[in-house]
Amino acid sequence: MSSAATAKPVVAVDAMGGDIGPSAIVPGAVDALREGGFRLALYGDETAIASELASLDMSGLDFGIVPCTQVIDMDESPAQAIRAKPDSPVTRAMRDHKDGRVQAVFSAGSTGAMVAGSLMLLGRLDGVDRPAIATVIPTYDGRFLMLDAGANVQCTPEHLQTFAVMGDVYAHELLDIESPRVGLLNIGGEPGKGNDLTIAAHALLAGTDLNFIGNVEGRGLLFGESDVVVTDGFTGNMTLKLIEGFGLFLLKAYRDSTVDGNAEQGSKGLGALLNRMDYAATGGALLLGVRGSVIIGHGSSSARAVTSALRVASRLAAHDVPARLSQRLQASS
Amino acid sequence: MSSAATAKPVVAVDAMGGDIGPSAIVPGAVDALREGGFRLALYGDETAIASELASLDMSGLDFGIVPCTQVIDMDESPAQAIRAKPDSPVTRAMRDHKDGRVQAVFSAGSTGAMVAGSLMLLGRLDGVDRPAIATVIPTYDGRFLMLDAGANVQCTPEHLQTFAVMGDVYAHELLDIESPRVGLLNIGGEPGKGNDLTIAAHALLAGTDLNFIGNVEGRGLLFGESDVVVTDGFTGNMTLKLIEGFGLFLLKAYRDSTVDGNAEQGSKGLGALLNRMDYAATGGALLLGVRGSVIIGHGSSSARAVTSALRVASRLAAHDVPARLSQRLQASS
Repeated sequence: MSSAATAKPVVAVDAMGGDIGPSAIVPGAVDALREGGFRLALYGDETAIASELASLDMSGLDFGIVPCTQVIDMDESPAQAIRAKPDSPVTRAMRDHKDGRVQAVFSAGSTGAMVAGSLMLLGRLDGVDRPAIATVIPTYDGRFLMLDAGANVQCTPEHLQTFAVMGDVYAHELLDIESPRVGLLNIGGEPGKGNDLTIAAHALLAGTDLNFIGNVEGRGLLFGESDVVVTDGFTGNMTLKLIEGFGLFLLKAYRDSTVDGNAEQGSKGLGALLNRMDYAATGGALLLGVRGSVIIGHGSSSARAVTSALRVASRLAAHDVPARLSQRLQASS
Repeated sequence: MSSAATAKPVVAVDAMGGDIGPSAIVPGAVDALREGGFRLALYGDETAIASELASLDMSGLDFGIVPCTQVIDMDESPAQAIRAKPDSPVTRAMRDHKDGRVQAVFSAGSTGAMVAGSLMLLGRLDGVDRPAIATVIPTYDGRFLMLDAGANVQCTPEHLQTFAVMGDVYAHELLDIESPRVGLLNIGGEPGKGNDLTIAAHALLAGTDLNFIGNVEGRGLLFGESDVVVTDGFTGNMTLKLIEGFGLFLLKAYRDSTVDGNAEQGSKGLGALLNRMDYAATGGALLLGVRGSVIIGHGSSSARAVTSALRVASRLAAHDVPARLSQRLQASS
């Protein structure tokens, strides 16, 4: 596959990642491929990938396999694994991204390995001290982008300002929001509320040219007060997991409402709510602030979740978001 | 009213607090009074209180009014308001608690004023550097106690250890749990996960004689992994407000599922879930670590929420929780 600028971007997919592995990743990736917009490179164990492809109709699809002999496990030390396993899907895909052979990398494997691999092999954008994980979260009747969702457990106000600029660019470019409302996740609405970090970050953000709407609180988060929600990685990860817990809570309530597991007899109200809050449709997390387009899938990604993540990956690559980020960060520094 | 040790405890109630004021507080307090277990002292504007009482059947009930001419507003500086308004319900009730005339204080007014009033007029228990707000949160089929829910936005590992001991005593004494499972709210399950605070707190808690079960994550919180959840006041308040947001989310979904506002035609599944997650039934937050029994109601407390909060206040006073806390803190220091 060539990487000519006029051709469709190539998305590198770690076929081995996630709890389910190739049997979820490969069909999910192929479903996204059928929608067009990108070419697919499947990284991983050749036999396992071929075995999944055998049961799919691949006629007319533009794809390739990049055989890899190693795999990074979830519990490995990320940086060490990237160094020790040059032939793992994540390591090879990052190198190929760096060399321009692929235009985006997706994995539902170890988040730590994706972050470490990106930092070590792609590097940071100028002006970015800390890349952030950005994730799209569904609300009652829309969605918002939250960052950082877990890359940096300790942050400075300046980090939060960079996150805000990156979130603004992403929401504008890929969520098609003209002037994204940027909120600071905090306890209390007034500027003086919060801890040292949020008080200082509020002051910084108020001085930018962003459409900064001030503090946003947990109570209003799921009602779409804000398009971009900025927070440190500890609070962001906590928030993400609580909201995931809420999804699991709704799912359990829905299952408990069915009779003998018969969904037809389940609570229609709960079923509708579950559809509305469907995380599988929101498309994975993004690592913003590195020199590349990096998409991190949830470990428990289903084929459907992989499909939507690859839709995002394809758009990310086509829009060349890192270049846009670079321009904006230079303009705002 | 006398405060003889053999008599029922007297609970001081700020009749003026909360968004709705006397028209929610007074009927709610009287409903709790009818269940017995305590005597009621209503603090506030005498005319407003009398006007609410006029429509209630008070025969045979043991209550009194303590007329107050001042009120602390929600946006006043708490410490300043306590000093400047000696005749506000909160200030007078705290003084009367200190003097032994009442055995517990409840207000749904300014949380800050309740904390400041407690610190300034009751003082801290020996061994407590920072009192914490503890709140009972409903789960899918149970409940847990979380602290700190917002009194201290910046905490040390030692503060979290004290919170854990206080939570353990409260869960044992008032939630009737023999050996409460104490968890540390964190991102990630392993001991090395989290930020500087949670990593250090984990190590401290592992060395106590508590039934410490390690880190608990947002995903499992609503499924009752833990009886006591320990966290700093920033993360705790964020968590509390997010969970309140879930409640509002369910309520909106339920209302949207009704036809012309007719609850009979609403989603039964959502209705059942709302009942299960009913915050009005959990009884207000407690300020643990001060020399007294202090219960803080939610600003939007309904009469029903006041009733359940006063049930807790009455038990808190009867168990003399501050004395129990004192014993345990001295034993563990």
